[in-house]
Amino acid sequence: MNPERLIRQIEFIREVDKLKTIRRQTLLTDGSRLENDAEHSWHLALMALVLGEYAGSSEIDLLHVIRMVLIHDLVEIDAGDTYCYDKAGYADKLQRETAVAERIFSLLPADQAAEIRSLWDEFEASKTPEARFANALDRLQPLMHNVATRGHMWKQHGIVQSQVVDRNRKIADGAPDLWTFARKLIEQAVNDGHLAP
Amino acid sequence: MNPERLIRQIEFIREVDKLKTIRRQTLLTDGSRLENDAEHSWHLALMALVLGEYAGSSEIDLLHVIRMVLIHDLVEIDAGDTYCYDKAGYADKLQRETAVAERIFSLLPADQAAEIRSLWDEFEASKTPEARFANALDRLQPLMHNVATRGHMWKQHGIVQSQVVDRNRKIADGAPDLWTFARKLIEQAVNDGHLAP
Repeated sequence: MNPERLIRQIEFIREVDKLKTIRRQTLLTDGSRLENDAEHSWHLALMALVLGEYAGSSEIDLLHVIRMVLIHDLVEIDAGDTYCYDKAGYADKLQRETAVAERIFSLLPADQAAEIRSLWDEFEASKTPEARFANALDRLQPLMHNVATRGHMWKQHGIVQSQVVDRNRKIADGAPDLWTFARKLIEQAVNDGHLAP
Repeated sequence: MNPERLIRQIEFIREVDKLKTIRRQTLLTDGSRLENDAEHSWHLALMALVLGEYAGSSEIDLLHVIRMVLIHDLVEIDAGDTYCYDKAGYADKLQRETAVAERIFSLLPADQAAEIRSLWDEFEASKTPEARFANALDRLQPLMHNVATRGHMWKQHGIVQSQVVDRNRKIADGAPDLWTFARKLIEQAVNDGHLAP
């Protein structure tokens, strides 16, 4: 065992605890409070296990998907969560998050830092089947929460159907059947008066 | 696609959202509040990725470890977290948790319900190299949090060094090097006055 290597790994593990304090613009399904990034990442990883069969590619590497979803929001530790319908926030999102990635990932030994950076870049690029599936889950989960909470956050932010459809269309790239399901959820939300047409 | 199958999977994914409301007897490292089970499960999965090289067996299947840590606390959704030093609570813990497992896992299609039940049984039995490593992480993480928060919860519950050593000795079965590290953490906590000898 290399003690210095372990110390760096432990320092990283302690640092990422902060992800539990980064609040998202999504309510828990019971509506009691906003969700945080760590809980969200856990939920996506579990969804990957349960819904893996709907990935667009049959040759998908599930461990790879899970590695991506576990680390995909670490860059929000300093940068904060950017609300997905916040156009101004999105203008410098990548720049802000890249700075955080460099700080946090470099706590790790160089080989692991490079590995996690590569996973994050892959998730952001959303080109590989694994990244497309991971991104599909990252959209489906908050959609499900918005539906479960009768569109509370949509209403609060004045979001309408076309924005939700545009935002979630990417689900089709990673999991076509889940997009079919998601479209039904959106239509139902409009019919129930939880999302403005 | 089988619509009924997907509906069951989605129902399960929605039900497990409740894990985010189950509070543990561990503070976040910043001491701001108690951790919940979903955050804890995410942290363990990330630790598995970073610390996999310390698993006692070199042939470890990391995806299998991660599957176990992602689902290991789902049974606390109705049963609640049993404090690890609560002897009375441990007396009927398995019985209470088994009832929950039957209810929650059976929301899933039968094949997936059986798979998750098998993962949970394997984690609880802690015999396979993967389960031993998963259990080692499940002990190391709260130990790190107790040290980071200057033993606040240990003091609150009147826990002493011998109890912490007994509780965490199991780390050695799954990750011998991490047990060496954990013992140093415990000694340091005693020397710093954060844990009673």
